[in-house]
Amino acid sequence: MGGLETDLYQLTMAAGYFQAGKVNEIATFELFVRRLPASRNYLIAAGLQQAVEYLLNLSFTEDEIRFLRGLPQFAQAPPGFFELLSRLRFTGDLDAVPEGTPVFEGEPLLRVRAPIIEAQIPETYLLATINFQTAVATKASRLAEAAGSRAVVEFGTRRAHSPAAGILAGRAAYIGGSTGTSNVEAGLRFGIPVFGTAAHSWVQSFASELEAFRQLQRLLGPNTVYLIDTYDTIEGARLAASLGSPLWGVRLDSGNLFELSRAVRGILDAAGLAGARIMATGDLNEYKILELAAAKVPIDAFGVGAELATSADAPAIGGVYKLISDPTRFEMLVTGTTSVCPSPPALCVTPLPGVFSSDRFAAFPSDRMQLIAYYDGNGTAELDIHLVNPAANTCCVLT
Amino acid sequence: MGGLETDLYQLTMAAGYFQAGKVNEIATFELFVRRLPASRNYLIAAGLQQAVEYLLNLSFTEDEIRFLRGLPQFAQAPPGFFELLSRLRFTGDLDAVPEGTPVFEGEPLLRVRAPIIEAQIPETYLLATINFQTAVATKASRLAEAAGSRAVVEFGTRRAHSPAAGILAGRAAYIGGSTGTSNVEAGLRFGIPVFGTAAHSWVQSFASELEAFRQLQRLLGPNTVYLIDTYDTIEGARLAASLGSPLWGVRLDSGNLFELSRAVRGILDAAGLAGARIMATGDLNEYKILELAAAKVPIDAFGVGAELATSADAPAIGGVYKLISDPTRFEMLVTGTTSVCPSPPALCVTPLPGVFSSDRFAAFPSDRMQLIAYYDGNGTAELDIHLVNPAANTCCVLT
Repeated sequence: MGGLETDLYQLTMAAGYFQAGKVNEIATFELFVRRLPASRNYLIAAGLQQAVEYLLNLSFTEDEIRFLRGLPQFAQAPPGFFELLSRLRFTGDLDAVPEGTPVFEGEPLLRVRAPIIEAQIPETYLLATINFQTAVATKASRLAEAAGSRAVVEFGTRRAHSPAAGILAGRAAYIGGSTGTSNVEAGLRFGIPVFGTAAHSWVQSFASELEAFRQLQRLLGPNTVYLIDTYDTIEGARLAASLGSPLWGVRLDSGNLFELSRAVRGILDAAGLAGARIMATGDLNEYKILELAAAKVPIDAFGVGAELATSADAPAIGGVYKLISDPTRFEMLVTGTTSVCPSPPALCVTPLPGVFSSDRFAAFPSDRMQLIAYYDGNGTAELDIHLVNPAANTCCVLT
Repeated sequence: MGGLETDLYQLTMAAGYFQAGKVNEIATFELFVRRLPASRNYLIAAGLQQAVEYLLNLSFTEDEIRFLRGLPQFAQAPPGFFELLSRLRFTGDLDAVPEGTPVFEGEPLLRVRAPIIEAQIPETYLLATINFQTAVATKASRLAEAAGSRAVVEFGTRRAHSPAAGILAGRAAYIGGSTGTSNVEAGLRFGIPVFGTAAHSWVQSFASELEAFRQLQRLLGPNTVYLIDTYDTIEGARLAASLGSPLWGVRLDSGNLFELSRAVRGILDAAGLAGARIMATGDLNEYKILELAAAKVPIDAFGVGAELATSADAPAIGGVYKLISDPTRFEMLVTGTTSVCPSPPALCVTPLPGVFSSDRFAAFPSDRMQLIAYYDGNGTAELDIHLVNPAANTCCVLT
């Protein structure tokens, strides 16, 4: 399962390792980010659970192997290679920093040690998993930092890169500090709090805004959030206030949030609804939230969509997965130059980035990583992974 | 299946429509982009196949309904709503422009007409599907335009937003004009040509670069592409040339591509390998490719990763899914103002963007859209969808 969810070159290299008699050679790879994007100075590690699930299930079906046999790139591959694929399982060790850990340039997020074919094939899947979720968790952390005591909810599935990415964005955002997500499947699958009430189409579908609000209050009671900007925001706030309790509050999705939030707060307070809250949405990011927070606007919660679910200003954090030199052979690449390390890797410190690792075992204390999965003689066994949300101070056991 | 792959508010609105007696009300929604991102002046529609598959399979399992019943937002929902969900199927019509069609600001990519609950719930999934694949197909089209007669291959799975997004990025890039993808699963699932040979770790895993190249040539024969920049690019080119035919060519992944491509071309030609090709990779985008093409560099193919698979400069194209006013009631929102259209929508033209549609049936001739799926009395039936690649001038029947 999942055997073909990789770049073709991982599989041609695997065939080549087989051809070259390297099947039993043990290789160690590390996944790390060489250079942080310009707008990031730390990362929040995320995606480990999906990485572990992939490694535990990695295998090739007959159909998948038949497809490979039909490709021109495998015309000369040794037949024994396909037999190897048909019984391939990941039997290596995986070390990783726990999800939610802050990591920095050059610091490994995970390390795979396995027979070289089993270590090479997972590169693409592990990178796609860790790069994406780490990007979103990091963005969520920045948003939570900007919002301070205000809640940030992940609302970006519609702008996520596929529905599947939307589910994982909700997960990663929660690890990074979001209070919850609008993605219902993420709620079911990962136990993350889910939020949402109604859109403009709800208001539009009724003959009047007041009728739309009445129906919503009847349905949602204390969870009612009126979206008040479909026609006129101030009038929308007055209509919402006229319905009194129960309600959670109102949502602003357009216009000048500095002015509107204060005006709406006044309308709610004047109606005796001091406990009603104001949520703001609409193309928000950490910079806009910082400005709003600095102005002490009466906004209680932010919903963030595209910017969070796509990490829009840094959509690709650029993690790489690199072969660690073994102690007997440790050439390294500094772009355009070959430098041969004069001493064993653990003692050799070379400037990052641009180095194919070798030194990072020494540069970063190993107690930041912990054993996540290991080979128990029959296959890879998995240890408990806990999903921790710093904002909610809750902890969901995932396995 | 897939019932919870949506924003919670779609389901609370659905419960509200049920509560308000709107179950049989027919609604029409259109999916379009209000404002193109700054770096885009057209879009290439993509993602329709996955949209259709979703609509054909949309349903709710018992577990999913049990999860919803347990949420505070559904504490007051009428029990009949959950019965409705348990037998819900999409019975509406779907009109859409074919995949690969250029579309512009305000022009609908698809239109859903169905009972309001069936039309509302799919919003999130349809947007996540169409927004993402359209973004990638558009980026691929720009890259193909910049590359001219040179091939562009999609190499970005590792930077895609999840492994699942990587598969779909390969698909969307092909629709937009890429020659193929490195994603093997995309090859199996969609019949897209797959490419790839070896990475730096391949070269590193052998005692010498020459031995790594020899093993690769033995495995791949005429499909051999030597990655020549692991240690020293010029020396790598000489080693590759020394092995003679068969080979496809070499790949450059770092350094000054203007200078290196010319030097490497000279080395290959001097060795009598005029037919050997040069591929370039490494943080490429359409602007860099335009510069390289303008300088008439001897590069035959480009591999593009993060920039293509994440549409990095425009990672969220911002498509929206909006309720179309019915002929008897057609208020519209121009941000901050209510304007009531003085005549039936089909005759009413208002300035875009900021308008909740109403006029676009008139503004865009309907012959750009075609019926893709329709209700045949028992359920939704699907018409043939063809996957067309403009570069390869091939056509794969997907259904």
